[in-house]
Amino acid sequence: MKKIYSPERSTWPTVLKRPTQTVEDIEATVLRVFNEVKSEGDIAIHRYTQKFDNVSLENILVTSEEIEEAKKQVSQELKESIAAAKSNIEIFHAAQKTEKVSVETATGVLCWQEKRPIQKVGLYIPGGTAPLFSTILMLAIPANIAKCKEIVLCTPPGNEGKINPAILYAADLCGVTKICKVGGIQAIAGMTFGTNSIPQVYKIFGPGNQFVTVAKQLATKFGVAIDMPAGPSELLVVADDTANASFVASDLLSQAEHGKDSQVILVSTSKKMIDKVEKEVEEQLSVLPRKDIAMTAIENSRLIYVDNDVEALTLINEYGPEHFIVCVKNEEYYVANIENAGSVFIGNYTPESAGDYASGTNHTLPTNGYAKQYSGVNLDSFMKSMTFQKISEKGIQTIGNAIELMAEAEGLQAHKNAVTLRLESLK
Amino acid sequence: MKKIYSPERSTWPTVLKRPTQTVEDIEATVLRVFNEVKSEGDIAIHRYTQKFDNVSLENILVTSEEIEEAKKQVSQELKESIAAAKSNIEIFHAAQKTEKVSVETATGVLCWQEKRPIQKVGLYIPGGTAPLFSTILMLAIPANIAKCKEIVLCTPPGNEGKINPAILYAADLCGVTKICKVGGIQAIAGMTFGTNSIPQVYKIFGPGNQFVTVAKQLATKFGVAIDMPAGPSELLVVADDTANASFVASDLLSQAEHGKDSQVILVSTSKKMIDKVEKEVEEQLSVLPRKDIAMTAIENSRLIYVDNDVEALTLINEYGPEHFIVCVKNEEYYVANIENAGSVFIGNYTPESAGDYASGTNHTLPTNGYAKQYSGVNLDSFMKSMTFQKISEKGIQTIGNAIELMAEAEGLQAHKNAVTLRLESLK
Repeated sequence: MKKIYSPERSTWPTVLKRPTQTVEDIEATVLRVFNEVKSEGDIAIHRYTQKFDNVSLENILVTSEEIEEAKKQVSQELKESIAAAKSNIEIFHAAQKTEKVSVETATGVLCWQEKRPIQKVGLYIPGGTAPLFSTILMLAIPANIAKCKEIVLCTPPGNEGKINPAILYAADLCGVTKICKVGGIQAIAGMTFGTNSIPQVYKIFGPGNQFVTVAKQLATKFGVAIDMPAGPSELLVVADDTANASFVASDLLSQAEHGKDSQVILVSTSKKMIDKVEKEVEEQLSVLPRKDIAMTAIENSRLIYVDNDVEALTLINEYGPEHFIVCVKNEEYYVANIENAGSVFIGNYTPESAGDYASGTNHTLPTNGYAKQYSGVNLDSFMKSMTFQKISEKGIQTIGNAIELMAEAEGLQAHKNAVTLRLESLK
Repeated sequence: MKKIYSPERSTWPTVLKRPTQTVEDIEATVLRVFNEVKSEGDIAIHRYTQKFDNVSLENILVTSEEIEEAKKQVSQELKESIAAAKSNIEIFHAAQKTEKVSVETATGVLCWQEKRPIQKVGLYIPGGTAPLFSTILMLAIPANIAKCKEIVLCTPPGNEGKINPAILYAADLCGVTKICKVGGIQAIAGMTFGTNSIPQVYKIFGPGNQFVTVAKQLATKFGVAIDMPAGPSELLVVADDTANASFVASDLLSQAEHGKDSQVILVSTSKKMIDKVEKEVEEQLSVLPRKDIAMTAIENSRLIYVDNDVEALTLINEYGPEHFIVCVKNEEYYVANIENAGSVFIGNYTPESAGDYASGTNHTLPTNGYAKQYSGVNLDSFMKSMTFQKISEKGIQTIGNAIELMAEAEGLQAHKNAVTLRLESLK
């Protein structure tokens, strides 16, 4: 682990540098798959599933029999855990509902804002070693609260053409309307253009490898929205001597096990705490099943000593962490003044794992410094806000003259006429 | 104008087709300007301002003297109109403020969501014949209500190196913190990378020509967010015999004068109304100063007769208009059931011009069918939502076991450890 003491502000860009991703070399591949799925539909989907997932599927839609089968395979205790997490996530996201905002801005001019659901959304869940069923909870639950009509889930099939039972169980439980056994670029392309099997959607959510990431970027060129741009997951902990070094180390490691490019940073005003955490990390690391991954991430991690809380907070806001754990006596200072962070975890008993699974907050969060301008996934991610206005005869008489003058000053005579005609009809 | 009667659903994609834009040929130009601005900063900005705007500026920052000068040049009555519009826009956007959402999802597990301002935003205002000062109101007013710290405005200088006084007046009035005389691709590049003169921002808002549109798209590859993807402006009116054909025609024309590629559609359950509107459009068109532009747009416009309200609404939702005017007896049906529209204008005395300037709603809206998944600009466009959680000793005991089980099922042992360590410390 790299230890850095009181870094000069001029060095911050280097100190806070994230791993760079180069994606340009795979853009050509992604574009080719998109073009083929667009023109050939399910035939191209089938071909790429065979090529990338080594399986030939007659039917990519998951059947109700497969779901029933999956339900039997998930243990009762995991079902109960999922139910507990689901309840908390539902409570938190349902609380985010907003009422219609209605106001008479001037006499006779009634304006209101309403949020209405995005009718068709697509969720992508990666395959691979770890079945990320928790991400289904994070995406399908708010989509359901938002009342999205179609909630499509794409996830790659395993070698035998099957989906992990926990994924099927969670998808069914959380109201996914259609599950497709298709992964990677071809899944994103399928949801972008629609095929006979895969519905076209308006917005695509969910994590993925670099191919999926580039495919999601490309989808935006074809009129589909995405949840947010992606980057490696990251955690920043600020800790002083009131923190528990063992807990802090466990949090750093839980981030580090995500991937070799994961970002892990400790900021502290205590050199003693930095040394203690370093030692704890070494001890805990050795027994982890994913220690190879975690070790690479930890090697690139940084322990940064700063002189005081003000300096610490300025540096943290400059970084804009995806996950931000606050274990300091003066926690209120950080909570009140953090400007850029995806999700904030406060106190010694609030590990990042809690937000990843079950506290109720969403774990789909802005990485790569995007916390400066992007929200994590929340209820509004599945809705769009629309405005309405209804102007009475009296109302157009109130604001009509201002509109005429402004339209004229902008050289837009027809805009002015639309008001003038109405005002004259009322004379 | 093309008249279409009771189109079959299979023909809707053709009937509702928007003009296609091809931008690929200008991407190379945009990328070159970006690379030069990134490496040379203000020197490249200066060079391109000379090349594209035909003016050599020693200092691109607008001075307080220039603003004072501009204030003198704007007429008193235009100032009063701007003040009236500003008041309505402020009232409506201030009403959109949301409170912190706080909930105890499980015993000892407190979660909350707060919106905090995007610290640095950039506004782009095009130059050209019409000085779009109204767009400054639409962007700078909510940015101010959101409490964004830096509000940078870029707009191209005229031949003499000056900015239209109405633009300077509106920018100063609405709290823009810095005004730069720079336009086009180089302005977007400047705000993306930052130069000695132009601050780097986190999110860029505002309209522009195809070069600006492609530049904004490219900016997203360099970590900057944008308000929304762009397309030609568009209006759809639904009208029955209770509508006023003259008013409807004036609304269609006010949209048509925006540009030759503007989209104008009338949907009606009355053939009589369609004929009346067609005649009115011809009459009103002939006297417009921008009639060449409007005529081209009108030639591509469509008057669509449908058999009933259900068919009309289905078609309208399929299109997802940016502006949607409802002039029918049964207006409640359309207002309650419209799923995809940017802004809705209800009744005979609510012209689109009202929303463009002064009703209080925002005129930066999703075009190109993006109303299906994007919101128009609103207060939240200048903020991002962050989540917080604070879990007590009791709280981690409540949800700890569920987290452990789920983390284990996902194969993430370190995630589990972070909880196990804490639970054990409490035994």
